[in-house]
Amino acid sequence: MTVTSPKGFRAAGVAAGLKSTGALDLALVVNDGPDATAAGVFTANRVKAAPVLWSQQVIKGRAVKVVVLNSGGANACTGPGGFQDTHSTAEYVASRLGGMGAGQVAVCSTGLIGERLPMPKLLAGVDGATKALAKAGGFAAAEAIMTTDTRPKVVEVVTGDGWTVGGMAKGAGMLAPSLATMLCVLTTDAMAGGDALDEALREACRVTFDRLDSDGCMSTNDTVLLLASGASGVEPTQEELTAAVTRACHDLAQQLLADAEGHTKQIAIEVVNADSEDDAVIVGREIARNNLVKTALFGKDPNWGRILAAVGCTDAVFESDELNVAINDVWICRAGAAAEDRGKVDLSGVEVRITVDLNAGDHSATVWTNDLSHAYVHENSAYSS
Amino acid sequence: MTVTSPKGFRAAGVAAGLKSTGALDLALVVNDGPDATAAGVFTANRVKAAPVLWSQQVIKGRAVKVVVLNSGGANACTGPGGFQDTHSTAEYVASRLGGMGAGQVAVCSTGLIGERLPMPKLLAGVDGATKALAKAGGFAAAEAIMTTDTRPKVVEVVTGDGWTVGGMAKGAGMLAPSLATMLCVLTTDAMAGGDALDEALREACRVTFDRLDSDGCMSTNDTVLLLASGASGVEPTQEELTAAVTRACHDLAQQLLADAEGHTKQIAIEVVNADSEDDAVIVGREIARNNLVKTALFGKDPNWGRILAAVGCTDAVFESDELNVAINDVWICRAGAAAEDRGKVDLSGVEVRITVDLNAGDHSATVWTNDLSHAYVHENSAYSS
Repeated sequence: MTVTSPKGFRAAGVAAGLKSTGALDLALVVNDGPDATAAGVFTANRVKAAPVLWSQQVIKGRAVKVVVLNSGGANACTGPGGFQDTHSTAEYVASRLGGMGAGQVAVCSTGLIGERLPMPKLLAGVDGATKALAKAGGFAAAEAIMTTDTRPKVVEVVTGDGWTVGGMAKGAGMLAPSLATMLCVLTTDAMAGGDALDEALREACRVTFDRLDSDGCMSTNDTVLLLASGASGVEPTQEELTAAVTRACHDLAQQLLADAEGHTKQIAIEVVNADSEDDAVIVGREIARNNLVKTALFGKDPNWGRILAAVGCTDAVFESDELNVAINDVWICRAGAAAEDRGKVDLSGVEVRITVDLNAGDHSATVWTNDLSHAYVHENSAYSS
Repeated sequence: MTVTSPKGFRAAGVAAGLKSTGALDLALVVNDGPDATAAGVFTANRVKAAPVLWSQQVIKGRAVKVVVLNSGGANACTGPGGFQDTHSTAEYVASRLGGMGAGQVAVCSTGLIGERLPMPKLLAGVDGATKALAKAGGFAAAEAIMTTDTRPKVVEVVTGDGWTVGGMAKGAGMLAPSLATMLCVLTTDAMAGGDALDEALREACRVTFDRLDSDGCMSTNDTVLLLASGASGVEPTQEELTAAVTRACHDLAQQLLADAEGHTKQIAIEVVNADSEDDAVIVGREIARNNLVKTALFGKDPNWGRILAAVGCTDAVFESDELNVAINDVWICRAGAAAEDRGKVDLSGVEVRITVDLNAGDHSATVWTNDLSHAYVHENSAYSS
């Protein structure tokens, strides 16, 4: 149940010495075809890492034969030299594997910002990974892209129609809109053109990764790639393709949520009866980013007043005296004022569901987030330099 | 050096029993004239507390004779009954003091959201405060509006031209744009019309309280009032009035920053060479709200990569390879990449100055914030229910 679940893919994960711990830190995912169509979605951050700038160009060709990924360094804010490092990596991978140009090699990096990668180690790692490429290499690849993740994230969606979607992702902090800080490679053995893949991937990201907002911070390196080998010989409809890719992305997004840095709660914010889906997402996101809401939930405090204060910071359509709020199905606020006894809200579990009824229409959306805990502060004040 | 510093004002602070601790929790500020002109600025949150809705109406008349303030309860999200409580309070104050209508009584409340105020206690407190009104009552009033503040905030600006501005404020958390969660009453014995006061107050707030963003959370109750008695007999120019009120607001804003919940750092984010002042504020605000930047500074980590990632989330005018960043005057990032040795940055002190050079124009602005610490999480997960 990894990137190598669909037919036509091999992968590898090796220790190139980029991480001081000696853990796996370099991965390859190879599409053996017969097709090599691809699509990609990238961070909306205007400060983009070198591998993002590179892979955005690669994906325009709609053809990707290999993805090379490293942890242990983001290669972001590294100037022209950093971009050259990415370019050299792609060229080296293409020459080692043969039968392709550097323009068919996507590159992803994750780790600290602002430092150049140790290229001799990285290229030696590519040699090792090339030799290790195997159908069974998906798990090692997923492990090699971990940073502060405590476990690899992998997925497999078997459609029952003879084709499959597989995937892997990493990301445990800096999770935010327009993609969590994450790298994600999805694979499928469906026959699908680049435009079909692009449509499926954009729609899937829109309702999954884009609605995961762990800590409101958008990364420089976010990348989601979808590669199709066509090896199943089956060509699904656009609807079938989008549905399967969305299922895979949803599954991975929930794994990211469940492994977010230092959380004690996994919070689904469901905004209902909104004037538009955009309004629902805007309100959900504002609540997800509110540190007072997040600390209250860490403290097991059903503080609906802070939720209302967050809603009030948006320009969504609503009247403040028509807002209803439930936490874990207890409607503690109705018509903008106290309703059911807050003592009835049980916040002892890991999963929390906040429902906000805007009373303004019939659209809805769910945004996922985590609480703000001592462990989050610890991990993010200690990480890095 | 309080609201009673200017001629023509009396104040009082008493314990009405709204706080379970028995601390002072109800304040009156009375303008004895001869003038009673006033201006006000209120939260931009669309979920507004009852006293905000009331005082917004009062201030339209540009005449305020008394401000009654309470801590121990925000009277926010309390429905029509909560608004009636505010109305009754104003009527009661007007009848007890005489010579005015309820429409000249502004009301401010602060504390927990979502609970009705204990009106019998509150009105008995008004009785006590009325008897305690004195020229020396300014400090007690400042103490009575504290919530999680560890100390009262007061100010006095003596202009040297025979007139003075005095003030008090409260606010230690939920500090954010479009006013920190705070109550602030400013007084002056200058002769000034309502429009002149309004212009002075808006400009002062724009460059002080509006640029204080402790934790990105905007309150339902923020209120800043400016009352003029005219008792000095001096009519300053608009420029002089604005300058003095701005000095008073700046001083109080810095006191709020220095008393923010659980902080270990007071951070000035100076954005220079921006295309516009708006751009400078937007970039400063984005950095101020970034939890990864805030936790890094708590950890004494000069993590300029996180600062660049925050800048990249804005739509300000800049090119990512032309950004320069200094922390405490060490230019650790130039042209979007590493420059001076980060080891040179000394983050051992309380005060931190981040300078971001956008290289896009000649405008600048400073936004102030705090770090994100264990104590912040503790205080905000424990506060309330």
